[in-house]
Amino acid sequence: MNAYGEDMVEHENLKSVSSALLTDMYELTMLEAAIKDGSVDRQCTFEVFSRRLPSERRYGVVAGTARVLDAVTSFVFSEAQLSSLDFLSEETLDYLRNYRFSGDIDGYLEGSLYFPYSPVLTVRGTFGECVILETVILSILNADSAVASAAARMVTAADGRPILEMGSRRTHEYAAVTATRAAYLAGFYATSNLEASHRYGVPASGTAAHAWTLLHVDDNGQPDEERAFRSQIAAQGVGTTLLVDTFDITKGVETALAVAGNQLGGVRIDSGDLGVLTRRVRDQLDAAGATDTKIVVSSDLDEFAIAGLRGDPVDVFGVGTSVVTGSGAPTAGLVYKLVEVDGHPVSKRSSNKRSHGGTKRALRTLRPTGTAVEEIVYPFDHDTPPTGRLGFVELTQPLMRGGAIVDGLPTLKQSRDYLAREIESLPWEGLALSRGEPAVNTRFYGFDH
Amino acid sequence: MNAYGEDMVEHENLKSVSSALLTDMYELTMLEAAIKDGSVDRQCTFEVFSRRLPSERRYGVVAGTARVLDAVTSFVFSEAQLSSLDFLSEETLDYLRNYRFSGDIDGYLEGSLYFPYSPVLTVRGTFGECVILETVILSILNADSAVASAAARMVTAADGRPILEMGSRRTHEYAAVTATRAAYLAGFYATSNLEASHRYGVPASGTAAHAWTLLHVDDNGQPDEERAFRSQIAAQGVGTTLLVDTFDITKGVETALAVAGNQLGGVRIDSGDLGVLTRRVRDQLDAAGATDTKIVVSSDLDEFAIAGLRGDPVDVFGVGTSVVTGSGAPTAGLVYKLVEVDGHPVSKRSSNKRSHGGTKRALRTLRPTGTAVEEIVYPFDHDTPPTGRLGFVELTQPLMRGGAIVDGLPTLKQSRDYLAREIESLPWEGLALSRGEPAVNTRFYGFDH
Repeated sequence: MNAYGEDMVEHENLKSVSSALLTDMYELTMLEAAIKDGSVDRQCTFEVFSRRLPSERRYGVVAGTARVLDAVTSFVFSEAQLSSLDFLSEETLDYLRNYRFSGDIDGYLEGSLYFPYSPVLTVRGTFGECVILETVILSILNADSAVASAAARMVTAADGRPILEMGSRRTHEYAAVTATRAAYLAGFYATSNLEASHRYGVPASGTAAHAWTLLHVDDNGQPDEERAFRSQIAAQGVGTTLLVDTFDITKGVETALAVAGNQLGGVRIDSGDLGVLTRRVRDQLDAAGATDTKIVVSSDLDEFAIAGLRGDPVDVFGVGTSVVTGSGAPTAGLVYKLVEVDGHPVSKRSSNKRSHGGTKRALRTLRPTGTAVEEIVYPFDHDTPPTGRLGFVELTQPLMRGGAIVDGLPTLKQSRDYLAREIESLPWEGLALSRGEPAVNTRFYGFDH
Repeated sequence: MNAYGEDMVEHENLKSVSSALLTDMYELTMLEAAIKDGSVDRQCTFEVFSRRLPSERRYGVVAGTARVLDAVTSFVFSEAQLSSLDFLSEETLDYLRNYRFSGDIDGYLEGSLYFPYSPVLTVRGTFGECVILETVILSILNADSAVASAAARMVTAADGRPILEMGSRRTHEYAAVTATRAAYLAGFYATSNLEASHRYGVPASGTAAHAWTLLHVDDNGQPDEERAFRSQIAAQGVGTTLLVDTFDITKGVETALAVAGNQLGGVRIDSGDLGVLTRRVRDQLDAAGATDTKIVVSSDLDEFAIAGLRGDPVDVFGVGTSVVTGSGAPTAGLVYKLVEVDGHPVSKRSSNKRSHGGTKRALRTLRPTGTAVEEIVYPFDHDTPPTGRLGFVELTQPLMRGGAIVDGLPTLKQSRDYLAREIESLPWEGLALSRGEPAVNTRFYGFDH
């Protein structure tokens, strides 16, 4: 066990952090009861879906799938972990000691759009092996999809201009790392977070903090912005981005130009009315011949603020709090529900008639232009539903077979490209930032019950 | 490096996960520039504070301090991490290779209340050793304080009735673990999360999922709630809590009583109008003599929903999404600002005159009844300000000296008790759930500048 209480397990020649205690207690007490009453080996399907999109958004973005598959693979109990489960019988502890997920997982690829009742992930196996994965699967998909869904709207709002993710300090230290991954998936171009850069290959970027300017006081304790800028350029080169709003922005830009000349890489503005300020600073830069000097803005930007700056001379957006917290929707609302037992569809009584039991898959129909028309959800083993003259894409893909991750799943970069194409396939109302109906309707097909 | 890309470092005989890359790139490029221009060893103070409380709440709760001290201790670079920092010079890499924080940290104890401009944490050392800790310190304090601040309001709303934290599935898999810690600190009595229980000693608890009932279909695929209840009681004993709302609640309670008798531990209701349903179920249980059977409710509860159930026969609240996401305020808005350089107070130009440079400490004055009056923020080395006939508590406490955690810091349980007393010290308007002014005013004293 390391300092963080994480148990290290040897598994498939890989020293990995066990995900096995990222689990709710009731999953293990249900397992124990199922071992006792003989239902533990019933063949089950659990499905991940959401009943609605948060904040009445028009679409959701699936993110975290690859992380889910890793977590299922490292769902292996160490002896230290088992010894903490003193509420379980020896028989149940033995079951967990030998536990390796050996079932099948199908689902939407990362970067796919999803809508209410899209069967985002389908987990098949015995009750025992599937039920205990609920928490870790949902934690990952809910966190990552919340960030990617918010980030994708920001990318649309930025209308081609790059966005730097810089929200690490506003969320849990490891949630920050995976939030970066999700934001990059959604089209952000880089991150401030070095762990995410190291782990996922997301390009790292950054400017400087107000602390840098404030550090450069003279012997009388008076601030010396010029000295700070000179030092930054000496260390980083003239292509660096100087933070110009520590004292007075106009004076800051003037000093930046005096120190760097008109080849300065960029200036960052982190406060104030960014529309007014960027226009003024652009004029000031252009007048000095610094026409290639970029203007980077940050300061509590979200998709609405970004859209509001569409007409202004912003070259790069820096986004922090809003992206790592899902911009008002910090969780995606995905649930993990038992939908089939030994071939029988099952479902909780619900006033909402749209809920169907049974293992499912889905396709999305497309116009010849590539625009999405509707999502058809149908029984997993059913023939492909008729789609008339419309084309379609099969959304449900094999992800794991017999407990092993299938070969050839997309890389993060490929998923990023895939999402960019998915966004292009949205009907135009899908890009609206306002609240409204899902952009694509989900229809059930082929269910008798 | 393990499967999660975390670098393991040997440090003080402790195999710990290095926190060193939980860092924004600009901190290291500023370090590099400071090494180059000779300012790296200037004596600095960085201060953690917030300018306002999120959602116009009346108070905030400091949480995560102990985790910060651990993260500072494990802020040690491995060679693999260093090799990923290819944008730095050899000189800077050597600085990082030898890096151990050797400064002093003072701050509010975990479980303290805080208000706008409370100097929650004060980090003193050289510029180089302090500047690179910004991200990891803020990530931890912002995440943990957001959860604890929301959770404390829920505990107040529950008015003595216990709250179970069950939100792991709604947030990042490791954020879930520390959210549990913060919720427990704030007065929640238990958690569903086994990793948090294992790591922090939070009591674990749980009931059963709808999947448990749905698993028990008969040979015709028809649901058999009675069989599910029988099995759960056989495995968990009659003191267990049965989930009664899978099909029909009245029928579910009837079946639960038929199977368990009137010694049943509890029933859980996870949907519907909880006020109406709990009164009806209480009557049904009482009529059957099950007067000690507890009613557990869950279903998107937040502090307002909990308060709305104050008059209803609820025995235990289960809270998920809202607590782990900070109930509308997923981050605490704490910032890390340079306030002093070589003895000179520094601060960014600000339209807000309340911001003061300089290293600070704080005390809170109290009426003889123990009710808080105001928070006085004053220069770190200044004499204690006059408080007239009021008593006071010193809020700023030594946490780290010369890079070592001071002895005798409170345990999690002690911090939990401390917060309970802090809440009692609030003026009555501080307990209001509505938006408004901070319950305690913060006053600066002894600053000339």
